[in-house]
Amino acid sequence: MYSSVDVIWTLLGAFLVFFMQAGFTLVESGFTRAKNAGNIIMKNLIDFCFGTLLYWVIGFGIMFGGSSAIFGGINFFAGNSLTFDLPTPTFLLFQTVFCATAATIVSGAMAERTNFIAYCIFSAVISGLIYPISGHWIWGGGFLAEMGFHDFAGSTAVHMVGGIAAFAGAAIVGPRIGKYTKDKKSNAIPGHNLTLAALGVFILWFSWFGFNGGSTTSMTGDDTILIASNVLVNTNIAAATGTLTTLIISWFRYKKPDVSLTLNGTLAGLVGITAGCDMVSAGGAWIIGLASGAAMIFAVEFIDKKIRVDDPVGAVGVHGVCGALGTIMTGLLALDGGLFYGGGTSFFFTQILGVLVTAAWVGASASLLFFALKHTVGLRVSEKIELEGLDLEEHGLQSAYSGFVVTPDMTNANELPLSANSAPATGMFGKEPVLATDISNVQVEAVTETDRNSSDIQTNWKRVQQGELETLPISMVSVVINENKLDELKKGLEKIGIEGLTVTQVLGHGIQKGSTEYYRGSVIPTKLLPKVKVDVVISSSPVHQVINTMKHILHTGQPGDGKIFVSAMDNVVRISNNDEGAEALQGYTAD
Amino acid sequence: MYSSVDVIWTLLGAFLVFFMQAGFTLVESGFTRAKNAGNIIMKNLIDFCFGTLLYWVIGFGIMFGGSSAIFGGINFFAGNSLTFDLPTPTFLLFQTVFCATAATIVSGAMAERTNFIAYCIFSAVISGLIYPISGHWIWGGGFLAEMGFHDFAGSTAVHMVGGIAAFAGAAIVGPRIGKYTKDKKSNAIPGHNLTLAALGVFILWFSWFGFNGGSTTSMTGDDTILIASNVLVNTNIAAATGTLTTLIISWFRYKKPDVSLTLNGTLAGLVGITAGCDMVSAGGAWIIGLASGAAMIFAVEFIDKKIRVDDPVGAVGVHGVCGALGTIMTGLLALDGGLFYGGGTSFFFTQILGVLVTAAWVGASASLLFFALKHTVGLRVSEKIELEGLDLEEHGLQSAYSGFVVTPDMTNANELPLSANSAPATGMFGKEPVLATDISNVQVEAVTETDRNSSDIQTNWKRVQQGELETLPISMVSVVINENKLDELKKGLEKIGIEGLTVTQVLGHGIQKGSTEYYRGSVIPTKLLPKVKVDVVISSSPVHQVINTMKHILHTGQPGDGKIFVSAMDNVVRISNNDEGAEALQGYTAD
Amino acid sequence: MYSSVDVIWTLLGAFLVFFMQAGFTLVESGFTRAKNAGNIIMKNLIDFCFGTLLYWVIGFGIMFGGSSAIFGGINFFAGNSLTFDLPTPTFLLFQTVFCATAATIVSGAMAERTNFIAYCIFSAVISGLIYPISGHWIWGGGFLAEMGFHDFAGSTAVHMVGGIAAFAGAAIVGPRIGKYTKDKKSNAIPGHNLTLAALGVFILWFSWFGFNGGSTTSMTGDDTILIASNVLVNTNIAAATGTLTTLIISWFRYKKPDVSLTLNGTLAGLVGITAGCDMVSAGGAWIIGLASGAAMIFAVEFIDKKIRVDDPVGAVGVHGVCGALGTIMTGLLALDGGLFYGGGTSFFFTQILGVLVTAAWVGASASLLFFALKHTVGLRVSEKIELEGLDLEEHGLQSAYSGFVVTPDMTNANELPLSANSAPATGMFGKEPVLATDISNVQVEAVTETDRNSSDIQTNWKRVQQGELETLPISMVSVVINENKLDELKKGLEKIGIEGLTVTQVLGHGIQKGSTEYYRGSVIPTKLLPKVKVDVVISSSPVHQVINTMKHILHTGQPGDGKIFVSAMDNVVRISNNDEGAEALQGYTAD
Repeated sequence: MYSSVDVIWTLLGAFLVFFMQAGFTLVESGFTRAKNAGNIIMKNLIDFCFGTLLYWVIGFGIMFGGSSAIFGGINFFAGNSLTFDLPTPTFLLFQTVFCATAATIVSGAMAERTNFIAYCIFSAVISGLIYPISGHWIWGGGFLAEMGFHDFAGSTAVHMVGGIAAFAGAAIVGPRIGKYTKDKKSNAIPGHNLTLAALGVFILWFSWFGFNGGSTTSMTGDDTILIASNVLVNTNIAAATGTLTTLIISWFRYKKPDVSLTLNGTLAGLVGITAGCDMVSAGGAWIIGLASGAAMIFAVEFIDKKIRVDDPVGAVGVHGVCGALGTIMTGLLALDGGLFYGGGTSFFFTQILGVLVTAAWVGASASLLFFALKHTVGLRVSEKIELEGLDLEEHGLQSAYSGFVVTPDMTNANELPLSANSAPATGMFGKEPVLATDISNVQVEAVTETDRNSSDIQTNWKRVQQGELETLPISMVSVVINENKLDELKKGLEKIGIEGLTVTQVLGHGIQKGSTEYYRGSVIPTKLLPKVKVDVVISSSPVHQVINTMKHILHTGQPGDGKIFVSAMDNVVRISNNDEGAEALQGYTAD
Repeated sequence: MYSSVDVIWTLLGAFLVFFMQAGFTLVESGFTRAKNAGNIIMKNLIDFCFGTLLYWVIGFGIMFGGSSAIFGGINFFAGNSLTFDLPTPTFLLFQTVFCATAATIVSGAMAERTNFIAYCIFSAVISGLIYPISGHWIWGGGFLAEMGFHDFAGSTAVHMVGGIAAFAGAAIVGPRIGKYTKDKKSNAIPGHNLTLAALGVFILWFSWFGFNGGSTTSMTGDDTILIASNVLVNTNIAAATGTLTTLIISWFRYKKPDVSLTLNGTLAGLVGITAGCDMVSAGGAWIIGLASGAAMIFAVEFIDKKIRVDDPVGAVGVHGVCGALGTIMTGLLALDGGLFYGGGTSFFFTQILGVLVTAAWVGASASLLFFALKHTVGLRVSEKIELEGLDLEEHGLQSAYSGFVVTPDMTNANELPLSANSAPATGMFGKEPVLATDISNVQVEAVTETDRNSSDIQTNWKRVQQGELETLPISMVSVVINENKLDELKKGLEKIGIEGLTVTQVLGHGIQKGSTEYYRGSVIPTKLLPKVKVDVVISSSPVHQVINTMKHILHTGQPGDGKIFVSAMDNVVRISNNDEGAEALQGYTAD
Repeated sequence: MYSSVDVIWTLLGAFLVFFMQAGFTLVESGFTRAKNAGNIIMKNLIDFCFGTLLYWVIGFGIMFGGSSAIFGGINFFAGNSLTFDLPTPTFLLFQTVFCATAATIVSGAMAERTNFIAYCIFSAVISGLIYPISGHWIWGGGFLAEMGFHDFAGSTAVHMVGGIAAFAGAAIVGPRIGKYTKDKKSNAIPGHNLTLAALGVFILWFSWFGFNGGSTTSMTGDDTILIASNVLVNTNIAAATGTLTTLIISWFRYKKPDVSLTLNGTLAGLVGITAGCDMVSAGGAWIIGLASGAAMIFAVEFIDKKIRVDDPVGAVGVHGVCGALGTIMTGLLALDGGLFYGGGTSFFFTQILGVLVTAAWVGASASLLFFALKHTVGLRVSEKIELEGLDLEEHGLQSAYSGFVVTPDMTNANELPLSANSAPATGMFGKEPVLATDISNVQVEAVTETDRNSSDIQTNWKRVQQGELETLPISMVSVVINENKLDELKKGLEKIGIEGLTVTQVLGHGIQKGSTEYYRGSVIPTKLLPKVKVDVVISSSPVHQVINTMKHILHTGQPGDGKIFVSAMDNVVRISNNDEGAEALQGYTAD
């Protein structure tokens, strides 16, 4: 005889935990760039689908199919008579959505450069094997459960598992192009939609009431009812405290309250409280929230700047670090058995041991898997795909935001080495690819008589000084190019001393013949493609040299290289100091 | 004595099914263009409001007010003593949100060109009459229920009803301008926000647990509890399988895993499993998910390309086709009575009959209604409104995304016939309007001496050949116009041989005097309006001819026609082959 | 012995009411401008966090810690034996999310110009003190409860409290720059994302089932079950009716069905029904929805246009006005005790009294608090911060939508006084700041011989008339500037008679040296910054004068002032009337 209220409560929890998939999708896509939004959607959707099937086929059996120390059992399709207080399918659904949460955490840390098919394979293996095995140790009657390790709703079993795998993946796949400078500084790569990221965080908070509250899997009897009630208040207090802690620390460290880190702070508090929300007081929840918010922000900074693992959404800091921290702090703050409440060191050390063992298992198995993928199907997309965005090349999607103008991504390659001889920028664990075109041999050319417009600049200067010419002739050189050439062109022009350029988003002519893209199976008519127009106004630089530099960088010999337009300017005035003519173009200023 | 747990379970289901309205709004608006987002919001909001009131006033009575074969009863305001196991208002709310789901499916298929008031009327009639009548047959004790037709949560009663009405509406209203080419090929019209569409799909999946799970309307007794549990696992498995099936098929057919079709695949799996989720095994759910995902993708292609009914969001393929398929497959896969489980053909044929009868009723009544609307209030907006976007003209909303730059919509009219004599592009069922301006009489004019800039091009060529002129003079002709003239201008310029144009989004001067638009009742100050600047660089084409062509297309005689600017260029260089001057402008290339 | 079903029902309500935070965030950010989206996110997130902690520490005790008439008690951390039918933490969580709802309403009305730290302090005080005190009167056994005042789920206790505080805040902080003209007309400032706002409204409607339904805090016994069922049907009917009423009224008053007001109409119906949803019939709910929708739209107009309090999201009209109205109408329409049902005037007058007393308390205390904040930490950001957007200056966030092109905000200062002597535009309660740069001394300069390009315009005209010159020389003057200078430049150019300008969004060179901005702790590389290019084509205006005007407005003497470029045009053609050359530039037209 099943209990109606227990089933309803558990299923409500399962529904809410499922909804976390929406929250993760929004946070991950909001914190990254528009050109990869479609790919991030797909990864989050597909990993849940693989998770659902693999966990059903094999994972659930491994986790709950027996009570041996290490491995539950082989019990395909959750089929044999497993005995639970809940109907097996209810329990299966509840466990499936937890499993999928662990898997989906990884996609954020590896976003914007990971091969789609490699990610699909990884997602299947973590759902069907890696997560269920450690899950068995903790929740399925395995050796950690036997030792008294306590992880109520999954700070370790779900979040830290996801966070450790995320770290392995992000480290092995290497940082995004443009993330680190040659001298190992970290560049910001801002997310494209913080409103959606915030919605994601609200959805996750909402869903976490199901994650933690539902983990009683019962609502029968005063004890259980009181535990569930306390769990929910603790969850809410830790989330609020984590948020405020991160807000204040970011305010001090970065001078202003940082929006995206504060959003991470909420998640830090939620992850931290998940292990012990049934055992600590509301005051204990407040302390865990405080510690988690603080630990997360320093962890994000450490991972990003010190060990230079590029985790675009902070998944490692949030889920890995706060998952471990919250589990260990349960050993200190548990009202029953916690070190601070006179429980002695035994429970505390068990908590630490559980964290370490699980981290070792996941770290090792995930790393092995990622290395295997790297050397088989390939873990990372090509530089071209990464620069153009994964949506275009991996999914044939011109943009997830058709119609909106999206500016060229200037983060890419801003700090790439000018010389092919210098070392490429790297993270600590993975190299970032070097850009294809070598601009080190851009030449500052000798000015010759053949330069039709500005002729011999020396002669012209003389004529200006002698009063023959009022000023040097001024020319505007414009070129319409593909966005992904912009960085190289900018670098090349800087090399010949031209700093002042104006970039305009335009639609230009051009069909990439032979490349048909589909949207919902219909051919996309691409008569006008997004391009950028670069305008340079010059006087002392010969037009000749500017054109040659542009050609050097842009020439491939294929249609689509673009055209350079030259026209005359009558005058230029620099507003800040009233310089006119050629003088207004001299010297580097921010005008 | 009502059961608390039954009421809670049913109400939880009702809340979640209500939330589907948000999911549909996001999917429909995300899959369509930004210029119609406000209109799509309004339609989804308003159809729920009409549905709520009409279903309360009359629909609920028709559906549940008696057990005769065809028609429940007249029982206004759900008022008389209807006997249910649940309190009448609980049951009313639960049924209201199901009714509204059927109605809202239609708005997606008819998006981007349907008259707002016609849609409101349609929405009232389907909620108050069409849906409740077939609903009575299936769920209200009518003849299909008597025959043993089984549709647990509404694959047929809700989704197929919506899908068939959607098909009728989309066919009768005709395809969007620019959707089909003269030679009957389908153009892609990409959606403006796939991230929101993905959120919509996650919301729908989340809500579907209420849709299917809640349809037990009880959580009492082990049998019911087990059914509900199985329903939920089956729902989840079918959704995951539908997603993966579509992913893989789209990957094979279109070379890359298509984002928006994969999102439809999730919904296909969900719709398919809805009829039989209480009767099939988890393996059966997997098969239904597989079949639904596959059927959907081929149906979308067939509807779009073969019969050319323009359904922007795939509503017919998802809800119509998979609704019917899932209902029929229940006749095969039901553990109790299914053909494959030795149940004989009787149940299977009943399922087919129920689908056919319901489809016939909805197809006939909805078609009749749409034809009546077409010949009274009008079913379709004018071409001008459609091109400018329904937000602007129907709602006085300049953009649902104020501040964001939205590029001109190049899908429109790309492939419209150049000659007014040739047949307009059509779907199989509805004609698409012909653009107002006839550009067939754009003339390739004789070049005369009066062309001030390039003079007589023949003479100039001679002078170039004789070495008198180094090159032909090069001119840039620029014009600032309204976005909706861009397609025609592009076509016209192509007709006189000019292929290379650059389009820039600008803000230009201009008040459309007399047209005051309001936002929240306040006047919108429109000092600068979004326009596009078109730049053409020419040499062999006389400036004269370009200006006359522009005038021919753009001239209305009203202020607001724009200005044409002519200036000289010093040189043009084609990067791919080093051509300079006039030569660089010869021949069609993608530069 | 606690009741499982009561706890589950109450917790489900609490979860949904928590989710309202997401709804409010989306509505508030969707209805305002993109440049403040990050700030709005933060305010909504942070007020919930402060609310959670303050209400836990002190507010809950004040509200429920005793049954004296005015003040519940001091009972820190909800700690002492408070006796409820529900576990204390369950009740605490449920009450916390209601408290946070009241607080978050205020952020919308004060959006886009309020100091972040002042808002944080306000948010703490309303959660810990203002709301709990009036909450005690109504729900905690205070004097209004004793008198029989009925506010089932908080039309007054939650929404009107929020709405009144919102009014005080919006009035005292003053209108946004550009909201009101010198002659006291209201300008529209359109929201940046109505799709997200619509999602917010759907989320709020969904959550309102928990807000009103959950307020039974029980699901035991037929009476309670029936009340809960009726509450939900009434809630749904009022929301639908409020929506349709607003739709129709906006259609009549503003000629077209207004999207954002209709969204407000939904919320109006929901707020209105909240007080009496347990006491009125479904017909009564319909009347309350009708009255609320109508009252809201006129209230929004009255507040915006007559008393000129700038409430960007309509929070005062929705929550303040409909909260009061719904509470009072309960005195008319309650089946038991309502004036229209023969209950006499006593209940009706109690309802009015309760509304007035609560409004007076909140109005007085919130006003006092806002005045105190105004004269200490400051209530409003500087003009510079407001113009550039709060995201940039308050949070170091270049944009919440990195990568998307966001057009310059032309609402700002469009109608600011040209002369510093004239009175600044004001709301009735608060002044709007005057722009820093005084453009009243822009001079229409005498044309002198030194104007190199167009020389003496009189002479040139003579030469044209005598046939010596075919046309006046035509020049294009372009300048690349920061967006926030655009309005002033436009005004200044209009003053010297130049109306026709073209504005293009570009990326320009320039590092603001010394200002390092962080995103997630990493430095943002700002090599190319968003700027606008303004093109002016002139003939009869001397180039000299245009340059001097630009310099006057743009000159600060700092790098970053920009450069002015002058080039020659060959010809200009006005399409509407075939004017060519200088003539095409004469006279003000919308071309």
